[in-house]
Amino acid sequence: MYRAPVEEISFTLKHVAGLKAGLDEGAFGELSEDLVDAILEEAGRFATDEVAPLRKVGDEKGAVLKDAAVTTPPGWKELYRRWIDGGWNALQGPEEYGGQALPAMLGVAALEMWNSGSMAFAIGPTLTMGAVEAMEKHATEDLKKKYLEKLVSGEWMGTMNLTEPQAGSDLAALRARAERAGDGTYRIFGQKIFITYGEHDFTDNIVHMVLARLPDAPVGTRGISLFLVPKFFVNDDGSLGGRNDVFCSGLEEKLGIHGSPTCTMIYGDGFVKGSEAGAVGWLIGEENKGLACMFTMMNNARLAVGMQGVAVAEAAFQKALAYANDRRQGKASTYQGEGMAPIVHHPDVQRNLLTMKALTQIARAISYSCAYATDKARASDGDDRQHWQDRANLLTPIAKAFSTDVGVDVASLGLQIHGGMGFIEETGAAALYRDARIAPIYEGTNGIQAIDLVVRKLPQGGGEHVFGYISELAEIVSELRTSNLHGFGQTANAIDNALDDLSDATRHLQKLAGEGRVDEALAGATPYLRLFALASGGAYLARGALAEENEARQSLCRFFAENLLGETRALKDRVVGGAASLSAAAKSLISA
Amino acid sequence: MYRAPVEEISFTLKHVAGLKAGLDEGAFGELSEDLVDAILEEAGRFATDEVAPLRKVGDEKGAVLKDAAVTTPPGWKELYRRWIDGGWNALQGPEEYGGQALPAMLGVAALEMWNSGSMAFAIGPTLTMGAVEAMEKHATEDLKKKYLEKLVSGEWMGTMNLTEPQAGSDLAALRARAERAGDGTYRIFGQKIFITYGEHDFTDNIVHMVLARLPDAPVGTRGISLFLVPKFFVNDDGSLGGRNDVFCSGLEEKLGIHGSPTCTMIYGDGFVKGSEAGAVGWLIGEENKGLACMFTMMNNARLAVGMQGVAVAEAAFQKALAYANDRRQGKASTYQGEGMAPIVHHPDVQRNLLTMKALTQIARAISYSCAYATDKARASDGDDRQHWQDRANLLTPIAKAFSTDVGVDVASLGLQIHGGMGFIEETGAAALYRDARIAPIYEGTNGIQAIDLVVRKLPQGGGEHVFGYISELAEIVSELRTSNLHGFGQTANAIDNALDDLSDATRHLQKLAGEGRVDEALAGATPYLRLFALASGGAYLARGALAEENEARQSLCRFFAENLLGETRALKDRVVGGAASLSAAAKSLISA
Repeated sequence: MYRAPVEEISFTLKHVAGLKAGLDEGAFGELSEDLVDAILEEAGRFATDEVAPLRKVGDEKGAVLKDAAVTTPPGWKELYRRWIDGGWNALQGPEEYGGQALPAMLGVAALEMWNSGSMAFAIGPTLTMGAVEAMEKHATEDLKKKYLEKLVSGEWMGTMNLTEPQAGSDLAALRARAERAGDGTYRIFGQKIFITYGEHDFTDNIVHMVLARLPDAPVGTRGISLFLVPKFFVNDDGSLGGRNDVFCSGLEEKLGIHGSPTCTMIYGDGFVKGSEAGAVGWLIGEENKGLACMFTMMNNARLAVGMQGVAVAEAAFQKALAYANDRRQGKASTYQGEGMAPIVHHPDVQRNLLTMKALTQIARAISYSCAYATDKARASDGDDRQHWQDRANLLTPIAKAFSTDVGVDVASLGLQIHGGMGFIEETGAAALYRDARIAPIYEGTNGIQAIDLVVRKLPQGGGEHVFGYISELAEIVSELRTSNLHGFGQTANAIDNALDDLSDATRHLQKLAGEGRVDEALAGATPYLRLFALASGGAYLARGALAEENEARQSLCRFFAENLLGETRALKDRVVGGAASLSAAAKSLISA
Repeated sequence: MYRAPVEEISFTLKHVAGLKAGLDEGAFGELSEDLVDAILEEAGRFATDEVAPLRKVGDEKGAVLKDAAVTTPPGWKELYRRWIDGGWNALQGPEEYGGQALPAMLGVAALEMWNSGSMAFAIGPTLTMGAVEAMEKHATEDLKKKYLEKLVSGEWMGTMNLTEPQAGSDLAALRARAERAGDGTYRIFGQKIFITYGEHDFTDNIVHMVLARLPDAPVGTRGISLFLVPKFFVNDDGSLGGRNDVFCSGLEEKLGIHGSPTCTMIYGDGFVKGSEAGAVGWLIGEENKGLACMFTMMNNARLAVGMQGVAVAEAAFQKALAYANDRRQGKASTYQGEGMAPIVHHPDVQRNLLTMKALTQIARAISYSCAYATDKARASDGDDRQHWQDRANLLTPIAKAFSTDVGVDVASLGLQIHGGMGFIEETGAAALYRDARIAPIYEGTNGIQAIDLVVRKLPQGGGEHVFGYISELAEIVSELRTSNLHGFGQTANAIDNALDDLSDATRHLQKLAGEGRVDEALAGATPYLRLFALASGGAYLARGALAEENEARQSLCRFFAENLLGETRALKDRVVGGAASLSAAAKSLISA
């Protein structure tokens, strides 16, 4: 059973991602190390004692739709109630509306633990946070007053309604329509699919954020507006009024995260008998500027999905480690006890476990560093603010894509360590493998993340921002060289080489961009993102190993550097030289 | 929907794996190219038209246990009947018992197609083949006469009963016991788990091959005997007699291959009322030599599981390719048509599809080459026989482990290409991802395969056999260099480098073995197996591209060489230098 790794998380936040330095320089106001630890301890306790025990029933029973109402798995409604009663939904919410306005670093750390407990449970509140953020930045005061306090506390939940059958990665293809009602409100019509927690029994009301087009809107992404569409209308005194014309017409039968209802939502189809058809919506932000509003919350949602990758990897590692210490098969030279050796003594099993552990720590370090940049941007102004915002923008697609790939790979290795038992559902290793698989897809596929990194993030600061980041990482290697710590073997050389690979690949992509050779850059985007993550990850592991003289940390860093970092050269070669053969070979793929 | 790639399979058999050369030199008797193609065509038709359409119902309904009887999914019993009526079960069976005694190459090619149609269906007959093989080599004439004809035709099915809860990879821990009954038969007692098709409704009788210990047997693997235990006794006239004391007490709820019943089998528990407890068994081979009998069929079973990896990869590739040509999102520079571009035009999707295609072809080439070696060994004698047997032994763990890893990776990429739809069960991409995951585990985990390769296969022929193989592959590169074919780019250099990496890593492992540094060799076993497969695979792709002047084949070979083969250097570095950091880092994994 999962136990929240509070110490490891606290260490990574403080000594790898930068929280300690931030606290020391007073960037986070009243926040102290002790308070950070107290919050992590409590969040971890909730994840371990409350969320994790309800994972299995969520997977087995799933969410159920009947007569347009969704019932969540047994015990989940009560779990959600305890969760909001603990104030957890309000962790990052604005103080003005009852939130605790804590740094994003604490938010993602807590999110990791809840997701380790159950991805299907923790994904719901993530959407509420997105709605809060969009409203805080773009909604009218009236709407904020009516909705924000209850969304911040979690008394109501929020959703994000983007996808339609013909419009997934390409939002320009959206068709849902909005009509001006003449009284300042709008009527929304259309179908949305893949709406996470679009309908459920956790809360009395659900507040949908819906993208739709006005009749006179320009084509493409510049003609999309964002609307707030509540399930129940809200009276001026805050009480609930009548039912709005929005309903859930179906739930998807999915590979994993069965407890999370994935809804098809129908707007304006005359669901409410006796009233005029059309879901009533209120505009958020300006007409035709909906995508910009959506993008404000997208970056954080992407980091939140990245945390799901870290979370499932951590859960899979813990489960596999426990099994490997328990299960006995064969003999091993390092085992002197009675009978068969615990399989953790077999070098091949050790290699798998260390790979899982290193990848999990790296994904965590990158993701927390991304959150740190967000926090620093909020706490700074002027050039500093821009610098940290650029940093957060740079790391977001990497945190999302690399961490979720790690989630899948680590869950798969964890299943493998269980042998035949891993394929049996009862063990729970297979459930992690199933759950993990959605994270590389939603909130922008990992292919889209890689394209975002290459096309939009590398040019930041005239193309110089990324090199500043690489230089910072190179300084860690210098520290490592001068540390005189034993036991690092070839670690410094390996990280240096990886950072050189990253620089070379970055320069090549910037050169392609400069020459307008976009397709070649796109062909190398995914290998480039992985190269970026591995090289950064090596440096982060070294930073952690330098901060604490601890053999386990140093030897894991060395294992990673000497066993897994060698991949960066092949990745660099692919970025630089792989595109030439791709376009020719791809011809055979295209149907006439 | 899957369509058997008969042309590609025929091409790979003939021009990559060696069948054409074998036919030309008369190694396969009457067999001709035309006959090969006719058989492949028919097997492919059966896979496409009969097996594949019943995959989904098998996944959804699964096998069901009630009152110790197992019902297979709707339509499967009739499918099995049509399959044996077509003579497919007898393809490789001995002629003396009604088989067609065709080469293993045709057997694995057909097996690939049936497994693409449905892994859960095709795994059943694989076990029957194993039973036939063990009996043919080790059973008494009486037993052969009674059982073999019906096992060869498929009128009855066979099973393999090895695993017990405490004895998975380590068969030395077996506890099932056998007692001499005094009349030449034995009584078997004990529990076996994970028994594929241990109970079902396909056939009137089921013939179990069971490993158990005699009371006076030596401890460990030298005290294991193999017994034939029929579900129903067989009278001398071949009719069925009473029920034996063996029954199925449970089915596993699994991640995938739901149509395949995975049974817990109870022997000798007094299931048959009114008769004495104890399942009646007949010895196969000699007492205490059961493991040797089991091993005869193990190599072929491992190759058969390797074919499952190839099969699921092929099915996943076809599904993803069709989807990528159908689904439209965004714009692409190579698409000039109306509206949004089919996603197959996006470079990132192309990269994924080409990776899937290349890995599938490589896994197929290695597996078919392994079957070719088996066939050549059967058709040769003396040193030649030994040479080809060594070759088959060498390639078997690679065919099993690499192909099944490819199955998982390609199924995962295929799911990713489907975006959100990939996570929805109805699409079928997720089912392939679930099914694929068992193949790296059963018939010896892929970790065990890697250890087998390093510990038992590399020393063959005094350590020289493997270098003979690498030299043969290097000749392909020489041919490539002298071919003067355009469009290969850096292919020859890339394969040369990969083969050098393979040679270096091989020498290093042999050196470690010579110095008794076993743990270090074991630490590098899995990276070594992958290195072996990639380097061989590059050479096989080149051989195919040289055999047919076809742009698609040449450009795919180049894509592989320039994009995926660079990994071999990192793998070599891990084999040579990775072990040093592993043992230190592993200390933190072991519980006190």
